[in-house]
Amino acid sequence: MKTDKIQLSAGGGGQESEALIEKIRKFLGYQGKWHGQNEDSAVTKSGQGEFLFFTTDSYTVSPLFFPGGDIGTLAINGTINDLAVRGAKPLAISLGLIIEEGFSESDLKKVLRSIGRISDQEKVPVVTGDTKVMGKGKVDGLVINTSGLGTGTKIIPNSGLRPGNKIVASGTLGDHGATILANRFDYESALRTDCQPLWSQIKSVQKHLTACKDPTRGGLAAIINEMASKAKVKVALDEGAIPFRKETKALCDILGVSPYELASEGRLVAGVAAKQAEAVVKKLQKFDKKAAIIGSVSRGQGVYLKTKIGERKLPVPEGKLVPRIC
Amino acid sequence: MKTDKIQLSAGGGGQESEALIEKIRKFLGYQGKWHGQNEDSAVTKSGQGEFLFFTTDSYTVSPLFFPGGDIGTLAINGTINDLAVRGAKPLAISLGLIIEEGFSESDLKKVLRSIGRISDQEKVPVVTGDTKVMGKGKVDGLVINTSGLGTGTKIIPNSGLRPGNKIVASGTLGDHGATILANRFDYESALRTDCQPLWSQIKSVQKHLTACKDPTRGGLAAIINEMASKAKVKVALDEGAIPFRKETKALCDILGVSPYELASEGRLVAGVAAKQAEAVVKKLQKFDKKAAIIGSVSRGQGVYLKTKIGERKLPVPEGKLVPRIC
Repeated sequence: MKTDKIQLSAGGGGQESEALIEKIRKFLGYQGKWHGQNEDSAVTKSGQGEFLFFTTDSYTVSPLFFPGGDIGTLAINGTINDLAVRGAKPLAISLGLIIEEGFSESDLKKVLRSIGRISDQEKVPVVTGDTKVMGKGKVDGLVINTSGLGTGTKIIPNSGLRPGNKIVASGTLGDHGATILANRFDYESALRTDCQPLWSQIKSVQKHLTACKDPTRGGLAAIINEMASKAKVKVALDEGAIPFRKETKALCDILGVSPYELASEGRLVAGVAAKQAEAVVKKLQKFDKKAAIIGSVSRGQGVYLKTKIGERKLPVPEGKLVPRIC
Repeated sequence: MKTDKIQLSAGGGGQESEALIEKIRKFLGYQGKWHGQNEDSAVTKSGQGEFLFFTTDSYTVSPLFFPGGDIGTLAINGTINDLAVRGAKPLAISLGLIIEEGFSESDLKKVLRSIGRISDQEKVPVVTGDTKVMGKGKVDGLVINTSGLGTGTKIIPNSGLRPGNKIVASGTLGDHGATILANRFDYESALRTDCQPLWSQIKSVQKHLTACKDPTRGGLAAIINEMASKAKVKVALDEGAIPFRKETKALCDILGVSPYELASEGRLVAGVAAKQAEAVVKKLQKFDKKAAIIGSVSRGQGVYLKTKIGERKLPVPEGKLVPRIC
């Protein structure tokens, strides 16, 4: 059905999101000397063999506080990670707060404390900000926008997967999405968000990565299809090798949700030349024991899931995804 | 009254805004090699005699469309101007859209067309973006965040006013605020927003400016008090010399609003050494005939308004300012 009204599904990170973003992009013609506009961060040359990276993200998560994190950790880590997956060392972050009138100042302080803690720990300063207050009922509690600047000498493209590459994941997938879902359905579990900054991990293996993304909105299914499509290759994932927490699987079974479509906020999925794959996984295991090789790349197209009984297509998520997961 | 609840007045750009921003800043300790965090854009060295500027702003204006502009023109011009008033040539803009479910796609296109038009005209590319959709009633229509990067070789400080300087304004003040107010009260007038990019104007006079700001939220009263206070000087404004449209004055009389507190979105107010002031105004008049010398700087403190019958203090705005003006 064709409608002039923007649907909730256009914000989920799946097919409908892509369609809306394509439409938006058409209005933004002039691009100067920038490229990578449809990657996690855009990039321009900033000197001899040096690049400047720029990215932005808004956070509308509900609830604002959840096991292992809050909207603040999500915002600063999300922006650090959008830089890191492109090979950029994060240089500075901006903080745009949009607050509902009557929002609790002590809750705001908790969120700011989270942001300050990651900023200190990662040595990524929050250098510029803006605060708006909207009337009661005009925004739901607190929305945050963070933009980020990064620098680097090597760009990791989203589109760099090559036949013969292995696909590696840096830990269990979908923990963040499962945590938010469990919280919304008052489902008791030991689930905690995986939300964390990824720059240290990526820096330790950067030279071996042919492509890299963090599986946020739309989860592994969204980003691996994007990577395969941009590189014009086939990806075969090994169902048994993809690390999931058993709590995530259990929750997905109960709710009828695909774990492949659940967001992570502190994991990376990357392509690596086959002969370096074991070494890369070993390095990533220093950060998280669950890091693993989860698939391989070959000529062809599409993403497939190898199960005990054969192979099935893993499609781009569509329709009613979990809203306001990040 | 002490309360844990954030008040609408904390978003108006006056005293309460400053108090909230001070609290926020306390949580953000690590600042690396950046400075100017409480100016319109932050700055760091990026090379021999070169600086990189970074700024962010969210736009929550209501209504979204108004005579002479819309939330799109406001967002891109606002961010260009936060760079320009610091002496930075705008390099790139990010675009974060937060859309209410059911928002009209054709209205979104109008807003994007506005952004695209200014981007093309000013050669400032929108290089990275993010789109979120929130459920019905969770955000009021459309909120936009734009962040911006700029480069420059000379920083114009907010704090640079010196005794002996003249204060210049680049055109009639408060047009934007008056336009939004008139629209809200269904008051018929010829008012149009002054929303426009300021980089060309500022570039033409940059070497003569000792300090510069654009009088957005809180209007002239807010920014001139900020400039006087940061520079530890007294500013005396000549009431008769400050350019206002007669429609703005008339609207203010009817509504009991101070024109000095109404936002402009395409004007600059700057300090200039006395002997260059006439020449600077002449250059600014090439862009807008209403550019004028509106006051002077001396030793002392505070901002005063010289009227026909004497001198009165022009205080920092406080309390119930016009909400959601930008």
